[in-house]
Amino acid sequence: MKSSLPPLDLASAKLAEARQTTLTKPPGSLGVLETLPPLFAALQGTARPETRPAHLFLFGADHPVTRHGISPYPSAVTQAMMGNFVRGGAAAAVLAGQNGIPLTIVDVGVDGSPEFHSTRPGLTFVQSPHRERAAGDIRVEDAQSPEDFERSVEFARSLVQAVEGPLRLTLLGEMGIGNTTVAAAVGAALLGLPDPGALVGRGTGADDVMLARKRSVVRDACARISGERRPLEVLRRLGGRELSSLYGAMLGALERGSVVLVDGFIVTTVALALVRALPQARARLLFSHSGDEHGHHALLEALGARPLLSLGLRLGEGSGALLAFPLIEQALMLHDRMATFEEAAVPDRDR
Amino acid sequence: MKSSLPPLDLASAKLAEARQTTLTKPPGSLGVLETLPPLFAALQGTARPETRPAHLFLFGADHPVTRHGISPYPSAVTQAMMGNFVRGGAAAAVLAGQNGIPLTIVDVGVDGSPEFHSTRPGLTFVQSPHRERAAGDIRVEDAQSPEDFERSVEFARSLVQAVEGPLRLTLLGEMGIGNTTVAAAVGAALLGLPDPGALVGRGTGADDVMLARKRSVVRDACARISGERRPLEVLRRLGGRELSSLYGAMLGALERGSVVLVDGFIVTTVALALVRALPQARARLLFSHSGDEHGHHALLEALGARPLLSLGLRLGEGSGALLAFPLIEQALMLHDRMATFEEAAVPDRDR
Repeated sequence: MKSSLPPLDLASAKLAEARQTTLTKPPGSLGVLETLPPLFAALQGTARPETRPAHLFLFGADHPVTRHGISPYPSAVTQAMMGNFVRGGAAAAVLAGQNGIPLTIVDVGVDGSPEFHSTRPGLTFVQSPHRERAAGDIRVEDAQSPEDFERSVEFARSLVQAVEGPLRLTLLGEMGIGNTTVAAAVGAALLGLPDPGALVGRGTGADDVMLARKRSVVRDACARISGERRPLEVLRRLGGRELSSLYGAMLGALERGSVVLVDGFIVTTVALALVRALPQARARLLFSHSGDEHGHHALLEALGARPLLSLGLRLGEGSGALLAFPLIEQALMLHDRMATFEEAAVPDRDR
Repeated sequence: MKSSLPPLDLASAKLAEARQTTLTKPPGSLGVLETLPPLFAALQGTARPETRPAHLFLFGADHPVTRHGISPYPSAVTQAMMGNFVRGGAAAAVLAGQNGIPLTIVDVGVDGSPEFHSTRPGLTFVQSPHRERAAGDIRVEDAQSPEDFERSVEFARSLVQAVEGPLRLTLLGEMGIGNTTVAAAVGAALLGLPDPGALVGRGTGADDVMLARKRSVVRDACARISGERRPLEVLRRLGGRELSSLYGAMLGALERGSVVLVDGFIVTTVALALVRALPQARARLLFSHSGDEHGHHALLEALGARPLLSLGLRLGEGSGALLAFPLIEQALMLHDRMATFEEAAVPDRDR
């Protein structure tokens, strides 16, 4: 799975930084928003970069690990929510529509799910040709064979590569009952935690008994691959289909020179695997939300990430990325449209 | 300055809360965003309330206290920035335009400022008829006489009252070189701090020497009115024209049944005075940003407020309110447009 990312144009980043100091505001007064234009500038080769075209890819899959009673919702919810996305009733679909961001819903392994047909502009449904192969129950077996894993990564990668026109910002989301359990196992193995159970949280609302079961499943899964720290092997053996798809989508987006907006516990787990495998990816990632899901903070710390929002979200679907999108767009609008001290004839401070 | 606020419709708030539990997401998974629809519902008397029409009022004034060398920028910047707002080049004007929020720029006491004429749709410039009376240097004298204070409050109140049509959300901003010094004095007096200098921060970028001068000015000003804790007297004697205008605008907005979005250190200081004078106002305030300005956290804590954003902003102008606006709008869109479990035929968890 070789990958080469386009080089960063540091001269354009410097020009963007220089422009920030000429705008009619005290230097640094837009806080973290001032760090965004240079990143986009480095990828677009211009001092006045753009946020759009942006695109949200949302991957859905099921997980046999749910047989251990680790989610308050039945697996059938994954399939039902795929329909809810396509019909525009789910949070991610509402927010994508409101923000004018095209949304591609990808079924990469939802149990018994039909092929949906979208009639909504900007909303596409895709079914992976590899979805018929069920993932394994990570408590007792590998989630994916090497062949299935590679197919899954490559399908998502090619999907992102195939979007027409430029791609400036890639938002990523996921749906899959049981996937906070799977992601906790991946994250704990990547971090090499002495107690993998420490990364487990309540997900969509596990009670104490369920939480204990989740911890037990994650401990067993991590013990099964004990000592394995290679990021792609961890992802293959413990991660489900939507996690390998997220990995592929990140690769595809970064290869196209897009910024990737990482959202939530599950996507952050995949981002950690990516940065471990491809360290130069780190500088091209933005983080939308610091969630309450137990373990998310440990992953963010390992990535040195400071997300834009902290709203107590725990929905997934890329909802935090969509909510953070207007902040990124506003930061780049300010960068492009604000007057300079010279243009506005505003006296600058003595420097 | 009597005021009566329209009653909250708690039945509508309850209906909005109930609707939240029927939407296709785990309960509570939208975090703090789930608290917003019930507030707007209580003010609009409907379970599915709206964010718009929204309106930003931005008040500008100068402060003779700048003669003590407490800002790195000359007072002339206030006037120049008023022009920059009207021409659309300042951050607040860019963001208001991008968000489609009408912006009223109000000169309530900018030294020697001309009457600007806006040709931009949605952008209005107003000059207060009372602006010719300069505010006092709070280090040695009261900022405003009782008559001037009342006129300033009432002018802003009437301005907000006069906006045609319904008003769902009122954003407030300010511009005035020296006004973090003035606001620190007001805040310290309201909080009754043993050392008023503790509330002083760097504002637009004071260095250590300047910071010491700011502290000294704030200590002198607070000592001058020592023992005065009545909120309106504190605001009159220590606050400048844009602070009393913000107070009037908050009153006018709340009287119209609007939610008020409080932004930044200076507006938060005025909000504390308002809540001290009119405790029932508190439930109708939202807070956009938790800033780095020293002292802001103490004020937010006194108000029991948890702002939506924390981005390291220190610009003022209502910029934090404008940046937070899309979050509020998205929260109400989700509330209105998401499918229920029943509509989407998504299995709910056993409850």
